[in-house]
Amino acid sequence: MATARAIVSHGPLSEKKWKLEDVKIVDPKDDQIVVRMVASGVCHTDINFGNIPEGIPGAQYPIIFGHEGSGYVEKIGDKVKKVAVGDPVLLSFSSCGKCRLCEDKHPAHCDEFTPLNFIGRKSFAKLSSSEPDIAGSFFGQSSFASLSVVDEKSVVNIKGLVNSKEELIKLCPLGCGIQTGTGCIISVTEAKPEDTVAVIGLGGVGLSCIMAANIAGVKTIIGVDRVESRMQLAKELGATHTINTSSFSPESPQDFAEAVQKIDKNGPTITVDTTGVVDLIHQAYDLTRAQGKIVPLGMVPPGSKLNIDITDMVVTGKKIMGTIEGDAVPDVWIPKMIQWWREGQLPFDRLIKVFKAEDFEEAVHQMHTGETVKPIITW
Amino acid sequence: MATARAIVSHGPLSEKKWKLEDVKIVDPKDDQIVVRMVASGVCHTDINFGNIPEGIPGAQYPIIFGHEGSGYVEKIGDKVKKVAVGDPVLLSFSSCGKCRLCEDKHPAHCDEFTPLNFIGRKSFAKLSSSEPDIAGSFFGQSSFASLSVVDEKSVVNIKGLVNSKEELIKLCPLGCGIQTGTGCIISVTEAKPEDTVAVIGLGGVGLSCIMAANIAGVKTIIGVDRVESRMQLAKELGATHTINTSSFSPESPQDFAEAVQKIDKNGPTITVDTTGVVDLIHQAYDLTRAQGKIVPLGMVPPGSKLNIDITDMVVTGKKIMGTIEGDAVPDVWIPKMIQWWREGQLPFDRLIKVFKAEDFEEAVHQMHTGETVKPIITW
Repeated sequence: MATARAIVSHGPLSEKKWKLEDVKIVDPKDDQIVVRMVASGVCHTDINFGNIPEGIPGAQYPIIFGHEGSGYVEKIGDKVKKVAVGDPVLLSFSSCGKCRLCEDKHPAHCDEFTPLNFIGRKSFAKLSSSEPDIAGSFFGQSSFASLSVVDEKSVVNIKGLVNSKEELIKLCPLGCGIQTGTGCIISVTEAKPEDTVAVIGLGGVGLSCIMAANIAGVKTIIGVDRVESRMQLAKELGATHTINTSSFSPESPQDFAEAVQKIDKNGPTITVDTTGVVDLIHQAYDLTRAQGKIVPLGMVPPGSKLNIDITDMVVTGKKIMGTIEGDAVPDVWIPKMIQWWREGQLPFDRLIKVFKAEDFEEAVHQMHTGETVKPIITW
Repeated sequence: MATARAIVSHGPLSEKKWKLEDVKIVDPKDDQIVVRMVASGVCHTDINFGNIPEGIPGAQYPIIFGHEGSGYVEKIGDKVKKVAVGDPVLLSFSSCGKCRLCEDKHPAHCDEFTPLNFIGRKSFAKLSSSEPDIAGSFFGQSSFASLSVVDEKSVVNIKGLVNSKEELIKLCPLGCGIQTGTGCIISVTEAKPEDTVAVIGLGGVGLSCIMAANIAGVKTIIGVDRVESRMQLAKELGATHTINTSSFSPESPQDFAEAVQKIDKNGPTITVDTTGVVDLIHQAYDLTRAQGKIVPLGMVPPGSKLNIDITDMVVTGKKIMGTIEGDAVPDVWIPKMIQWWREGQLPFDRLIKVFKAEDFEEAVHQMHTGETVKPIITW
């Protein structure tokens, strides 16, 4: 077992139980790859999972999170064909590759998505331990570690597409947040120039939706958030209009609807919620135009339900669309995003700020305050 | 005012307050047409509206229902261009023709759909009355009358497409039920041969879904109902499998899911509910495959809500699609359905049974017992 530096979550982050420490990593299986991480994006999903109280279902401590990794191949399992040692790689979600949805090129909806991505398999060990006792494989990768054993399906070989280690650091968030937003708009909702797209929540995913709508040539793109600095950023990334909801009262949802109708009296044809706030998802449904598409993208509290009048849905012809990871095939979508970035169409690097691994608490803090959209920690 | 024979609903049908009697009809406005009805299909929507208790919101007695009419043009308003006196016509829903959805060729989701189709405008009068005092214009037509003033938008000219009065009688249900089922499968869900389509409820709409799935070349078509005679009929119309749920207990929804999984272990990719039973809509959601489409088509009790776990929807990528009237442009879709019928691909006439207008109570009774799928009353 090789030794790595890692952020080990021994309990909730809110209780300061994430610790940077040395661990050992297991050897890769036939279809796994050891990646020497250069960077990993930090995503709200890491934090949501990493704040689950100890002892309740879903808590898997100790575990190593991180699921927007980038790095170089250090070692490969016997059956790995995708990469050779030394290749630069970006990491994305894992999938089984065998089920009907994987075969139909919808690996994000793989039958095994939950066990492969959310259930940590023991793949790290404390230095004092002879057996693996720390869960890894979060999203198939657990990239909050300088070395990690990664599923081959989580690995995208970008040899030839990246020119330096500095670029490889920048590119790490493509594997989840940027992919989720761009795929949602372009592949799932199939936004067209004549659409009106509203995006609620201008974090990494929401701003990626804005950039993607711009790539799709959408003429009316509305960014919605409570943080004023995001308004300007959204406009620079392609939003034609913004709405700052910070002054609106939760008791008067009509304020929000009226602000949207001032921009397009018929309402959006496509509304994406990235906040996971259930009331906002229902407001999104209400203000979307008849025949429009509503996409709940954000992580909602467990057990949250849609509560939609069925007759209204039938008469209006609205569509509610579930989707995860932008319905992307990462091996195809990540090179496409890199190309858009090089062409200047997807300037996602305007969202990032780089932190050293030991400053991970500050990185998370800045994400929460909104000072940084997409923190990246480096090894 | 001309005199007509009509089924006037003075109160709920369940209280035997629908009466066949003579009425007067108002003159057509500029954009209206007087149609001499030869026939009208009877649909559950007529009965649902016609059983609303007196005095509560939505009750509009006295009113004339009927919204699957066929007949000949008797008289036209000054601005009518679509038809000439004597032309054979089929009647469908009304729309404004001006809103963005009408302009985008989605008239079924017209901004004015509810007022134009569900709010009766006074267009009939009792013989003793000098002013119109009976509501008409149900679905723009109120076809339970030998003569009716119909919106031009509700009229489809089928001159040249129909050879006799007998054919015109047969064709009347194309304007709503058959259009709803065929449009749902072909235009809304865009079913493909590799799909597995399950249709819950094998009435006129459900069996039209089955026929449409067959037209689309779908390889696995599952018909679901509680009436055994419908199983055979569904198979003759294109179902490859049927499930009779009459022996299943409402307490064990897994029986239904297991029966579906025996046919396709992954579940349907498209599930349509035509029953309006909310529990079945939720079961339809649960048993549909990841990335599948769920379409609630049936009329649910007012106020019924979808109650769907949002996280499940995100992870599975399921889509819930509202739609009405098959998202059809009747002027385009009705001729297409007539062509399919002549080619033997849409044998909807196997569903019909013709009754004289005075036997309307028996027609409704046979629809309720399941003895007749689609009763037609003639004038």
